[in-house]
Amino acid sequence: MATPLLQTIHTPADLRRLSRPELRTLASELRQFVLDSVSKTGGHLSSNLGTVELTIALHYVFNTPADRIVWDVGHQTYPHKILTGRRERMGSLRQIGGLSGFPRRDESEYDTFGTAHSSTSISAALGMAHAAKLKGENRRAVAVIGDGALTGGMAFEALNHGGAPHGVGPADLLVILNDNDMSISPPVGALNKHLARLMSGKTYSAVREGAKSVLKGTPLYEFAKRFEEHTKGMVVPGAIFEELGFTYVGPIDGHDLDSLIPTLENLRDRKGPQFLHVVTTKGYGYKLAEADPVQYHAASGKFDPAEGFKKPATAPKPSFTQIFGSWLCDMAEADLRLVAITPAMREGSGLVEFEKRFPARYHDVGIAEQHAVTFAAGLACEGLKPVVAIYSTFLQRGYDQLIHDVAIQNLPVTFALDRAGIVGADGATHCGAYDIAYLRCIPNLAVLTPADEAECRRALTTAFRREQPAAVRYPRGAGAGKQPEAQLDELPWGRGEIRRESSTVAGAGKRIALLAFGTVLYPALDAAAKLDATVANMRFAKPLDTALIAELARTHDALVTIEEGCLAGGAGSAVGECLHAAGLAVPLLSLGLPDQFIEHGDPVKLLALQGLDAAGIEQSVRQRFGIHLTLVRPAANH
Amino acid sequence: MATPLLQTIHTPADLRRLSRPELRTLASELRQFVLDSVSKTGGHLSSNLGTVELTIALHYVFNTPADRIVWDVGHQTYPHKILTGRRERMGSLRQIGGLSGFPRRDESEYDTFGTAHSSTSISAALGMAHAAKLKGENRRAVAVIGDGALTGGMAFEALNHGGAPHGVGPADLLVILNDNDMSISPPVGALNKHLARLMSGKTYSAVREGAKSVLKGTPLYEFAKRFEEHTKGMVVPGAIFEELGFTYVGPIDGHDLDSLIPTLENLRDRKGPQFLHVVTTKGYGYKLAEADPVQYHAASGKFDPAEGFKKPATAPKPSFTQIFGSWLCDMAEADLRLVAITPAMREGSGLVEFEKRFPARYHDVGIAEQHAVTFAAGLACEGLKPVVAIYSTFLQRGYDQLIHDVAIQNLPVTFALDRAGIVGADGATHCGAYDIAYLRCIPNLAVLTPADEAECRRALTTAFRREQPAAVRYPRGAGAGKQPEAQLDELPWGRGEIRRESSTVAGAGKRIALLAFGTVLYPALDAAAKLDATVANMRFAKPLDTALIAELARTHDALVTIEEGCLAGGAGSAVGECLHAAGLAVPLLSLGLPDQFIEHGDPVKLLALQGLDAAGIEQSVRQRFGIHLTLVRPAANH
Repeated sequence: MATPLLQTIHTPADLRRLSRPELRTLASELRQFVLDSVSKTGGHLSSNLGTVELTIALHYVFNTPADRIVWDVGHQTYPHKILTGRRERMGSLRQIGGLSGFPRRDESEYDTFGTAHSSTSISAALGMAHAAKLKGENRRAVAVIGDGALTGGMAFEALNHGGAPHGVGPADLLVILNDNDMSISPPVGALNKHLARLMSGKTYSAVREGAKSVLKGTPLYEFAKRFEEHTKGMVVPGAIFEELGFTYVGPIDGHDLDSLIPTLENLRDRKGPQFLHVVTTKGYGYKLAEADPVQYHAASGKFDPAEGFKKPATAPKPSFTQIFGSWLCDMAEADLRLVAITPAMREGSGLVEFEKRFPARYHDVGIAEQHAVTFAAGLACEGLKPVVAIYSTFLQRGYDQLIHDVAIQNLPVTFALDRAGIVGADGATHCGAYDIAYLRCIPNLAVLTPADEAECRRALTTAFRREQPAAVRYPRGAGAGKQPEAQLDELPWGRGEIRRESSTVAGAGKRIALLAFGTVLYPALDAAAKLDATVANMRFAKPLDTALIAELARTHDALVTIEEGCLAGGAGSAVGECLHAAGLAVPLLSLGLPDQFIEHGDPVKLLALQGLDAAGIEQSVRQRFGIHLTLVRPAANH
Repeated sequence: MATPLLQTIHTPADLRRLSRPELRTLASELRQFVLDSVSKTGGHLSSNLGTVELTIALHYVFNTPADRIVWDVGHQTYPHKILTGRRERMGSLRQIGGLSGFPRRDESEYDTFGTAHSSTSISAALGMAHAAKLKGENRRAVAVIGDGALTGGMAFEALNHGGAPHGVGPADLLVILNDNDMSISPPVGALNKHLARLMSGKTYSAVREGAKSVLKGTPLYEFAKRFEEHTKGMVVPGAIFEELGFTYVGPIDGHDLDSLIPTLENLRDRKGPQFLHVVTTKGYGYKLAEADPVQYHAASGKFDPAEGFKKPATAPKPSFTQIFGSWLCDMAEADLRLVAITPAMREGSGLVEFEKRFPARYHDVGIAEQHAVTFAAGLACEGLKPVVAIYSTFLQRGYDQLIHDVAIQNLPVTFALDRAGIVGADGATHCGAYDIAYLRCIPNLAVLTPADEAECRRALTTAFRREQPAAVRYPRGAGAGKQPEAQLDELPWGRGEIRRESSTVAGAGKRIALLAFGTVLYPALDAAAKLDATVANMRFAKPLDTALIAELARTHDALVTIEEGCLAGGAGSAVGECLHAAGLAVPLLSLGLPDQFIEHGDPVKLLALQGLDAAGIEQSVRQRFGIHLTLVRPAANH
């Protein structure tokens, strides 16, 4: 479909010249452009279809980029990117060297704050608002936050601070709640338009039925219902935000420019903290996405917009997430003490089946990683065995709770760390690069690094059965394809295994041992075949198999550690500590992720760029230890 | 003063046999015992004087330890300890081998959950309540949380989950808000007693004036005021908690057993999430503490109860906290862009003077470490230069924000990390052992480890002036006593310095180099005098002075790193990585904190126990490298 009006929009200044009917046309073209674009590149679809009108209205009303818009999570910013000079680069989305799937300060002056993890926008926008006040600059700061992100504790911390600050007095901050819960279906209707027109005055109306219908199925619904019960019908719209010091306006229809634009114009000129409740529909305007917002939330691959997603003809290899999900159900059958916890990642963490089968032992606590960890600690105190399913990058948000509530008390909580290592299209913000470093320094805590699917299942069983905290880290996607056994077997605690022995005779060439932590075992084995190296599958980053390391150090000329994680303080660093502590002077080469953030792109390519594929490992070893091809390659090759 | 009734209480079962008048006598004796005890040992005073009646009422009404009481933060649990069999051990409080200043699961079955960091209690108690439900056990779970702790985001996360959970349905959880804000003075009065008696029915009364007077000066006051404005007088007590799904009761007088006991008895038998608002006075019953709750919040030393604290006759050495406070004011004078942020630690972090002089550039954001960090990031985006003053142990709670919002965007935020290393009486929960390990793995972030007061000031200036994130870590208390210069000078970036040269000739004995990170420089210098070792003051854990390390490795027979931080992944580990990467095979001994939690006690003794005083360093070096006294001691000594 042609998008002639959209083609004329190079900056938001261009759209500010349009009439209201032209803006509606622009919305239609923009929605089509998003759909076409994502169908070719993959990426988040539903949320971006839901923010088309809001994005247009914000750039129309606010003087961007002088006014600051901070998009919480940021995966809903494709319309924003398209309207701010990046339309023609949308074909490079989430690819190496291409546009990020999130806002980035180094990508555009319109991207005022890099987001990706949830619930940060109010804090950042409040900082910007205070800065403007302190500097005497007349600019606005706007945070756009979803209803899910609002359950994150730091959003409450920011509202609490924003409503009653120190120093220069209240900041001129606008928080927009983009209430886009998937189950919302009825349009918001006339009452809310009415409210929006009323809002420039001081009249507040009770919208009990309207509020209830808007909130149904959202995290806010329970608030509203409880509130209503206890106040015998005196519902004040948005009382929770009013109590936090904000002036509440809404709810209004987030797909109606005639509601959005006048409301935002009114709010733009008001002083102090303002809260606008906007209701949008995920996937709005694309029937297939409206009907199945989970499927269309994040499209990893291409699709035909007319037909929608198709199931692949051949079933792909099961992902580690699926291996975990199956293990969880099997272990729950075997052990009644198992309870599973997810901070709002039921699908991503593989808990759909578990929730169906064990609803009483399933807890989705919302986007609340801190609470997830300490809630698990509380369960463990009573003899239950909690499993916290969490991405490596999100456990960063429960770090203090992991130390203070779990590790110090040595409680048997199992952390299933998905997306450890390079994550691909989501980029630096989601990269699970740091977990080995930030976990292994914590006493009492074990860190397991299974090499493949079968070992992942055994690692989970092993961790679960220990009376101590333990984390099992595994990457995004599939591994080597090793089918797990049906039974629930353990791994020997703290022990690695030799997977390949070098046949090089001492003195006749360099005997190299590769020590692999995790799925890098397989490229290590491939490299070892070329290098005639010994390969150890270390399995545990903590406790380290120090006996195995000492043995390898005694019998080899050099050791090489390999991990899909940061080098600084990582598993290779732990091996180094072991060697120094034991006084073993064998040369050590550590391969892993460097001291820089890894950007988005195809994960296989990114791993290769970091030298963590077989060829990269081989090359690094040859280069460091001066091993020439002719020395170890079988003569038959030449 | 004699405490005859208290002497008969060995477990809570004993107090459950007392009459109401006897309980009042017990409260009086218990308060006296707390005062006498803390005056001899030091410790938290005001908060414990404030919880005497609440503690008695809880143990009277609830069937402890079968019912679970979780005390948020936990420094208010001295009365609880005294009533649960630990009265006679109170003289050992916060000393090595003695009672902890916080609840600990391994100290008593009545300590259901170890606390110390704020805002964890609701999460933990909710876990316990859900566990009871799942296991079919008829026990209650109670969280006691202060008004300050309630500003922590994870408390909101837990309330949000507790009010509308999945699975087994709502848990039978009681949250008690111990509203003990220091500025509260008027007693709560008859209306609230009335409310408490009413609560077993379903009647709710509006207590607009009562609520306002109770809330005045508290973090909740602004909520109530705003709420009232917008609702034209229709104030529902505790609406914010009602909206979160809890039944709200209160406020009631937390020093009146005749209010507390019947209210708790009513609440004990109710189903679902309950919220009781109790108002107490810090320091209650001890006039000196009531008048100056800040001074008496945490007493580090002994005092005469009749006279109160006395200023020491000679001024002590300025602490690192004071050095930071002075630097902050001086730098704020010099650079208008400086903004200071504290998560509710104005006194502890040395910001009292700064707040007075620069109120517009001061932000106390509440107990909200996550928000503190991202708020700083928002300020930095606008060209300001935020300084986040935070304890090492509390930065753990802003870890994801540090990575995601500050480091990835490479924003110039300075982290002033107080209480790095061993903290003494507060013990494992507050130990700043992990920061070097969890920070140095993060790209873009620098970590400075000044050796003394003068260098701390220069390190802060250096960090502040960089256009990148940087953390400066310094310990609790005073250092070597080096008076800082008045000017704002920098340190050479990423460079260490040689402070002592070994005079041992190569071949004539082992040439040892000690590489000190931080204040351990001074014991290292003392040890080096005995060992005739070279000493390097490394100054930076990141970026490491790799040129200096290589030079030392080439010119010495062994290197020894020393740090007051965890060995796993710490600065010594970084030196080890550097040696291995450069292929330098010099033996390396790393001294620091072992892979176990460091318990409470006198910090000087604890450092010595860990071998980090001069004698310990000397001994470790001699032992590892086989250096006998006679080899390096000057002959004149024999």
